[in-house]
Amino acid sequence: MRFVHNTLPQRVRFASGAAAAGVRAEVERLGARRVMVIAADAERALAEEIAADLPVALRHDEVLMHVPVEVAERARAAAAAHRADVIVSVGGGSTTGLAKAVALTTGLPIVAVPTTYAGSEATDVWGLTENAVKTTGRDPRVLPVAIVYDPSLTLTLPAEMSVASGLNALAHCVDSLWAPQADPINAALAIEGVRALTIGLPEVARDPSGLDGREHALYGAYLAAVAFASAGSGLHHKICHVLGGKYDLPHAQTHAVVLPHVLAFNAPNAPDADRRLAGAFGADTALAGLQALRARLDAPKALRDYGLAEADLPDAVEAILRSVPEGNPTHATGDNLAALIRAAWEGSEPA
Amino acid sequence: MRFVHNTLPQRVRFASGAAAAGVRAEVERLGARRVMVIAADAERALAEEIAADLPVALRHDEVLMHVPVEVAERARAAAAAHRADVIVSVGGGSTTGLAKAVALTTGLPIVAVPTTYAGSEATDVWGLTENAVKTTGRDPRVLPVAIVYDPSLTLTLPAEMSVASGLNALAHCVDSLWAPQADPINAALAIEGVRALTIGLPEVARDPSGLDGREHALYGAYLAAVAFASAGSGLHHKICHVLGGKYDLPHAQTHAVVLPHVLAFNAPNAPDADRRLAGAFGADTALAGLQALRARLDAPKALRDYGLAEADLPDAVEAILRSVPEGNPTHATGDNLAALIRAAWEGSEPA
Repeated sequence: MRFVHNTLPQRVRFASGAAAAGVRAEVERLGARRVMVIAADAERALAEEIAADLPVALRHDEVLMHVPVEVAERARAAAAAHRADVIVSVGGGSTTGLAKAVALTTGLPIVAVPTTYAGSEATDVWGLTENAVKTTGRDPRVLPVAIVYDPSLTLTLPAEMSVASGLNALAHCVDSLWAPQADPINAALAIEGVRALTIGLPEVARDPSGLDGREHALYGAYLAAVAFASAGSGLHHKICHVLGGKYDLPHAQTHAVVLPHVLAFNAPNAPDADRRLAGAFGADTALAGLQALRARLDAPKALRDYGLAEADLPDAVEAILRSVPEGNPTHATGDNLAALIRAAWEGSEPA
Repeated sequence: MRFVHNTLPQRVRFASGAAAAGVRAEVERLGARRVMVIAADAERALAEEIAADLPVALRHDEVLMHVPVEVAERARAAAAAHRADVIVSVGGGSTTGLAKAVALTTGLPIVAVPTTYAGSEATDVWGLTENAVKTTGRDPRVLPVAIVYDPSLTLTLPAEMSVASGLNALAHCVDSLWAPQADPINAALAIEGVRALTIGLPEVARDPSGLDGREHALYGAYLAAVAFASAGSGLHHKICHVLGGKYDLPHAQTHAVVLPHVLAFNAPNAPDADRRLAGAFGADTALAGLQALRARLDAPKALRDYGLAEADLPDAVEAILRSVPEGNPTHATGDNLAALIRAAWEGSEPA
């Protein structure tokens, strides 16, 4: 047992229907008096409700995917002009991302109110895009000091998008078990995340407007983010990154298709992960559990359905082979990776 | 699902045989140049080895149980006189406790190197004793910035003491599942702690000089401390506190005897805790798992073997009844608590 684990400081409030009260408590705790509310147009009404009793200095709604630098600059200037002393962000990954970009240069504390399962609120990772190039980094200043999770805010997230996003969170959990900075603490959180997502996602799919499934899914997504941010990218994320980058495949579907194949690839050489995942899935093996969950969620099965051409497979395998993380449980070769990618492409049973 | 969870910032290094390198790395990371080494006489040689390559400004070895105020004052004065800029503590709970007392008033960062399963290094709780009265409190300044766990340092801890201390850690885990600030994050860490202790403690008992059991036990004790500090005292700790305080019963033995009775008392009304503990113990029920573990460890069975008189039982029950935490899964009454305490006293099967 050899590891260095860095636990990040953060308050997490979790209560359905209590976002406004939770945010108020956190803002008061910080002694803040000039709130910058960041929320995209789509979350305007939600944000108004949450901010109703806050000392709001400004509202900012220019939110774009991948946080373009000029968007970040305008938000930073607005924060300075209005002498904001805290940021309250209400929204998904892009909104949290903008709040982080402001915090990165201003040091303002963030109280994050997530409305999706993106998980950015639980990490110290920031990202900025300039001339179509995304730069990411880590900084303690961008970690929200508090997260206010209110599952009722996710009820409007469509079921299909919820499930896709939830499977993405599940992939964070599974991959963190053998990622470069995998350690037993990350594993404990990841396994708890799998447990919660396994309860939550089928319930969200069955009854998207029910709170019980939403609670478990949101809680699971939080744990997935904490575990993944600490453990780093494992083989699964490397594969999805290559496929997404080279062939512009859709993010969530790629993750959903690839995950069982990576699990089948690694599980024989990761018996502890296999056993613990099986327990969290409530199945005999990790793979059986994941496949049963995927079946209940009617998850995507084959990469060929999402635009990957058969002719691209050899190049894809070569690129993936170059990015296999050190210490992956199963030694990757051109041959076994080719078999993995072909199986994911044609949608055959993972083996 | 309603909770507020406060995750405390801390770096945890875990590597057998690597204490000196780990401490050096953490001291350098802090940019510290004047180290105050706190270690009791018993750990002098160990501390010398660990501090060999450090810029030591002073060594302090006046360590007493429960941190008497005058001992703390002398340590604070010494730290100031030598312009220490970091504390490296090597030892058990009393040593960490003294380091915390110094940090409380000076704000000096602590790098803790634990040599027992006490767990104080993972909490922001301090304690000071004046005129035989112990005062405790919480302060972010006393939380060690880093812990360096080196299981090889615990090899000299006698097997019997290790097992007693390990069962105490196990009680932290179990009780945190229904303590006043119980939440799912604490539960995940506690369950991982049970898992680790269940692997580690029988191995420590079997082979006290083997590293494998020591690693698991130390890791489990860390998780127990994190979960317990966050969740607070549940019924088990309230009972042990009353018994220990009123009748001067030995700490570790009291915990070891009482735990299965509290588990049997609460489990029927805490089905999730029961199921998850069962999984962590690798048994059909939590109680069966705990009892199997206790049998392997030859754990103490009856309070009457440790000085509690039968005549004291009614008074004990009355005192315990007054301190039952709100929200305990099973509603406690004079009758059912009397049955619990009598069973623990006579060493009968928990029911």
